[in-house]
Amino acid sequence: MRASSSEDVIAATTAASLAAPALAASSLADRASWLRALADALDADVTSLVDLADSESHLGTARLTGEVARTSGQLRLFADVILEGSQLEALIDHAVPDAAPPRPDLRRMLRPVGPVAVYAASNFPFAFSVLGGDTASALAAGSPVVVKAHPGHEELSARVFDLALLALASAGAPEGTFGIVYGMDAGVQLVSDPRIQAASFTGSERGGRALFDLAAARPAPIPFYGELGSLNPVVITPAAVAERGTSLAEGLAGSFTMGVGQFCTKPGVVFVPADSGFEELLLAALPAPVPGQMLDSRIASAFASGQSVLASRPSVSLLSSTESPAGFAAPLVGSTTVAALLDDAETLLEERFGPFTLLVSYTSLDEVIAAIAVIGGSLTGTVHAEPTDDVAGLTDALAEICGRVLFAGWPTGVAVTWSQHHGGPWPSTTASIHTSVGATALRRFLRPVAYQSAPDALLPEALREANPLGIPRRVDGELRLP
Amino acid sequence: MRASSSEDVIAATTAASLAAPALAASSLADRASWLRALADALDADVTSLVDLADSESHLGTARLTGEVARTSGQLRLFADVILEGSQLEALIDHAVPDAAPPRPDLRRMLRPVGPVAVYAASNFPFAFSVLGGDTASALAAGSPVVVKAHPGHEELSARVFDLALLALASAGAPEGTFGIVYGMDAGVQLVSDPRIQAASFTGSERGGRALFDLAAARPAPIPFYGELGSLNPVVITPAAVAERGTSLAEGLAGSFTMGVGQFCTKPGVVFVPADSGFEELLLAALPAPVPGQMLDSRIASAFASGQSVLASRPSVSLLSSTESPAGFAAPLVGSTTVAALLDDAETLLEERFGPFTLLVSYTSLDEVIAAIAVIGGSLTGTVHAEPTDDVAGLTDALAEICGRVLFAGWPTGVAVTWSQHHGGPWPSTTASIHTSVGATALRRFLRPVAYQSAPDALLPEALREANPLGIPRRVDGELRLP
Repeated sequence: MRASSSEDVIAATTAASLAAPALAASSLADRASWLRALADALDADVTSLVDLADSESHLGTARLTGEVARTSGQLRLFADVILEGSQLEALIDHAVPDAAPPRPDLRRMLRPVGPVAVYAASNFPFAFSVLGGDTASALAAGSPVVVKAHPGHEELSARVFDLALLALASAGAPEGTFGIVYGMDAGVQLVSDPRIQAASFTGSERGGRALFDLAAARPAPIPFYGELGSLNPVVITPAAVAERGTSLAEGLAGSFTMGVGQFCTKPGVVFVPADSGFEELLLAALPAPVPGQMLDSRIASAFASGQSVLASRPSVSLLSSTESPAGFAAPLVGSTTVAALLDDAETLLEERFGPFTLLVSYTSLDEVIAAIAVIGGSLTGTVHAEPTDDVAGLTDALAEICGRVLFAGWPTGVAVTWSQHHGGPWPSTTASIHTSVGATALRRFLRPVAYQSAPDALLPEALREANPLGIPRRVDGELRLP
Repeated sequence: MRASSSEDVIAATTAASLAAPALAASSLADRASWLRALADALDADVTSLVDLADSESHLGTARLTGEVARTSGQLRLFADVILEGSQLEALIDHAVPDAAPPRPDLRRMLRPVGPVAVYAASNFPFAFSVLGGDTASALAAGSPVVVKAHPGHEELSARVFDLALLALASAGAPEGTFGIVYGMDAGVQLVSDPRIQAASFTGSERGGRALFDLAAARPAPIPFYGELGSLNPVVITPAAVAERGTSLAEGLAGSFTMGVGQFCTKPGVVFVPADSGFEELLLAALPAPVPGQMLDSRIASAFASGQSVLASRPSVSLLSSTESPAGFAAPLVGSTTVAALLDDAETLLEERFGPFTLLVSYTSLDEVIAAIAVIGGSLTGTVHAEPTDDVAGLTDALAEICGRVLFAGWPTGVAVTWSQHHGGPWPSTTASIHTSVGATALRRFLRPVAYQSAPDALLPEALREANPLGIPRRVDGELRLP
């Protein structure tokens, strides 16, 4: 295990802090070229990176190869996003000298917040790690990044970091733009370092809460964008089971076992109509009960002990429970009722990271809506219904507790586009008004600055009268395209 | 002194919580009509409201009458803002079935966060109080509001609340849209109430930090948007003193004594060229040393004890120091050097709420830039320079630490427009990426929700294919005007 010393952490944050003014002053075109250079470097090395990632994470080369493509695509998306310019949120109000009181010329835009700490996740060794979405969006925003590597894939992290440093240097990014630290102590020190201005995190509720608390306890607290855990409720209507029960069962089986169930958007609670036969359909659709190797032994043993807890609950039937060797887990399906779920909510609504899903049989959608309110914050909520179903109330109930409402699909798999939102009320994220995936993710690392009565030459280009960057701006209240 | 009971607080937050779904479902047009009804109600009662406000705050009828106009104007601005629709940040990505992997239809918009706690300030009995900017922006966002009244103007708060309730009811707003609580205990309880989803605050660093810590310590933490204190550095170049020293002195004298110095944007530290004669110009420009009555006795005695602390410092000369009766304060000017300021930063850089400003003589702008970095987070930073001065570096240094950079003006007075930004790095605010004044203030009370593959009829109107609201949206990456 690698472990950065306290001096290493200070060196990384100091370098980031020294680089911050140059990054803030860098052009959008330059930053876009850095992001593209990083994407190209990942793609150029995909085979050997995937091999190394698989040896550390056991996620399989097919999935990991796709993840590299997603990660490089994400870097390129942010390059496109910043060149378009809307992320600067440029606003111009010309002076109104004859107003009472007279109004000065006022122009506002977003500027980078400064050095950002990015805590890598275990379950996406590329997409939520060293060059993942948090790093991409922070660099796109113009903020230097210090990554805390995940111990589950340290050698991969070091390799990706090395190739990133080379790519950034070749593309002309300032020294100090990107740093990395290793080990839990370094991670704790990092979030409290006064040079760090924001932090992002993907991981467990326990770890995330501890770092969130440290961020809030600083003499000058910083925003902590954490993604901590999610149950991702799914609701299947009687009409949907009747119309396409088998394909729904196959879809669910694929979704909750994908990546050995180690996705933050894994469907953890599935409301199914009582006596609809869906349980049997799901069991029939389950893949052969071959245990899959989990990311690490801590995750595997947490899953196993969760299985023991569930087995001890009389209100839950475990419909499939293959024994697995240490470090592995086989698909596990539980079954209960809405009443039992609400009775034993603390245990039954705990996130089980691994290939487990809980079928909850219901007799009315009102009962489901009440249960959804108890489930609380989730990244996603899914509805499987037929056009004849009235699911407007259900849709609203899901929108209240989650960040993405899906129809006719499964929550695993997160498209990286302009519209994506990956976030939700606590505990799914610590800051539900922001996203960690999609074009708007860079808003986390930008803060507004207004300029009053500034001479044109002293204004950032984005706010100069002639609009030299050619970006969309709101002028005197009117949104104008370039 | 009024004091709400624990039951009162629960009743207010419960009512807000029950109203939240109706507010979230309300149309933009309806919400705009509520905001306009509130503005009309304030304006209709301006004379008697100002009399009551003056009796409690001693701020004078002229200033308070202007503040009512600002406050009703602010409510009307938010009505205009939400009808335009950009605040919904509607994004639509159509499905791309032949992408690898295939991309689903994905649409994202912002929805209200739910019940908001608003902590009123003492120094703006209208603009940062019951119907001030925080309330206006939260209601505009579609979030119910529970105000914690400020003890400095409780009778005014109750009067404004009563007229607001009537106006909201007449305009058809749901019951529970707006509530109020009184007293410190109620305020502490409010921020920890699980039904409250966000809080905003304007006041002291001590009080704000205590509430911030409570918000962060909740089982499910909430965002706390606090404005805590600000030094608002001003820099005057030698050329500016030479060109217009007298008018600058008059401007500064007016700005730091306005409202008996009780503005969050009061210029607290003014860098002036050594041996430029600006001190004498300022003393000559000071109004007759008639002590003004302060907002309350606690603020007055804090100012008086601050004066004693400064008087004990050999590195500071107090250039004007009239004795004031209890509860009053006279304009006070201190003088020191950059070196002494940095030597005794903790004391000399403490915010003094009241009519005090500290002149800091400098010999080079580099010296000023170094001192600005030590000052840290401020709401504003001001430059008075001539076209021949090179102040690009100084402008960048100010933009690093503050939320609004002014040229040729004074920071007191905050225009309420689309472009305004009122915020800055800690301690000036707890969340420097958001503003409490200006059109974008409602972003604090909105959170994104994405809809994947949703039937058109189940989508919120803002995201339906036909754009029935006629709002700006980004479709497949392209920003489109209606």
